[in-house]
Amino acid sequence: MGMVMTMVNYPIKKAPPAKTSVSVANRGMDLEEAINQTNEYYVSNDVAHIYKKPIPIQVVKVDYERRSAARISEAYYKVPSTTDYNGIYRGRYIDFEAKETRTKTAFPLKNMHEHQVVHLESIRRHGGIGFIIVQFTLLGKVFLLDAEHVSAFWKRGEEGRRSIALVDFETLGRQIPEGYVKRLDYLKVVDEYYFSK
Amino acid sequence: MGMVMTMVNYPIKKAPPAKTSVSVANRGMDLEEAINQTNEYYVSNDVAHIYKKPIPIQVVKVDYERRSAARISEAYYKVPSTTDYNGIYRGRYIDFEAKETRTKTAFPLKNMHEHQVVHLESIRRHGGIGFIIVQFTLLGKVFLLDAEHVSAFWKRGEEGRRSIALVDFETLGRQIPEGYVKRLDYLKVVDEYYFSK
Repeated sequence: MGMVMTMVNYPIKKAPPAKTSVSVANRGMDLEEAINQTNEYYVSNDVAHIYKKPIPIQVVKVDYERRSAARISEAYYKVPSTTDYNGIYRGRYIDFEAKETRTKTAFPLKNMHEHQVVHLESIRRHGGIGFIIVQFTLLGKVFLLDAEHVSAFWKRGEEGRRSIALVDFETLGRQIPEGYVKRLDYLKVVDEYYFSK
Repeated sequence: MGMVMTMVNYPIKKAPPAKTSVSVANRGMDLEEAINQTNEYYVSNDVAHIYKKPIPIQVVKVDYERRSAARISEAYYKVPSTTDYNGIYRGRYIDFEAKETRTKTAFPLKNMHEHQVVHLESIRRHGGIGFIIVQFTLLGKVFLLDAEHVSAFWKRGEEGRRSIALVDFETLGRQIPEGYVKRLDYLKVVDEYYFSK
């Protein structure tokens, strides 16, 4: 099994977010942090209202020293039931999942849960916009790929060996521009891909 | 300060969910449970894809006995940044907050956070559908009230004393029908209120 770093599942061995200097390619930047900062920019400029959903946690034990300050003393991470991000943009429902990979040639689909693929498919069918954002960390490139393509790749090949090649992201997807104010301006790609038809 | 039971904030003193018999008026039913069950019905019948967001929790300490089974040993509830529920229905973005009250004549607005009211207002402005669902537990009645009205009531009166009267829910909002298969069929009201114009 190749070592693939998924950043979205559990914040167990998360690298600290990049602070001051960011290389041109933003190598090693924390994808979640970049998306969250971009979403904050979108919200505060009233461009879109898209948020990361909290990580679902099963609380088992809570201590109440004071009623107002409950301290959770036993809890476990749960598998998310949908995708990580959703919200509204230009009147449309937006829904996506974000993943990092350290491979250089393909994104292994074992990083996705089947129910997430099914969920994104449902969103499309109901008139929403669904996609994945994948960061090839070692290449310093981030792509957006529409849910329709994700489903198609999911249905191909053997379970556990499915993947989406870098070249497929380059031809079927769009690279997301990175910057300083809008660190990962994925709505620019959404404009081009979904609103210019 | 009157005793008001809010069910959505923290699952601290939550009553066990109603199991078998439900009175005609569904008195004392757990609003969150009723909405979750209804949402499951909507999802499994592909009517809508609306989910409750997980409760945000700040994780402070995690024990790793095995890498796959992380045990959270210290964590705290955080204030949610948006509303509890969102998703897609008939191509539209849907966003709402659900609250219970045990008062009989009005819903005290101290049960809402200001940023939630602002959030629902933003959703409307961006072409989404935003509302609150309020259960008057002792009356056995549940209402849907559009975000525009919520904002208007929020702007009236003194902080800490603001409320929305039952009669306002009856005239400006819509009562949500309750049933067995769809326990709280709020999309029926959404159809009438937002899609029949």
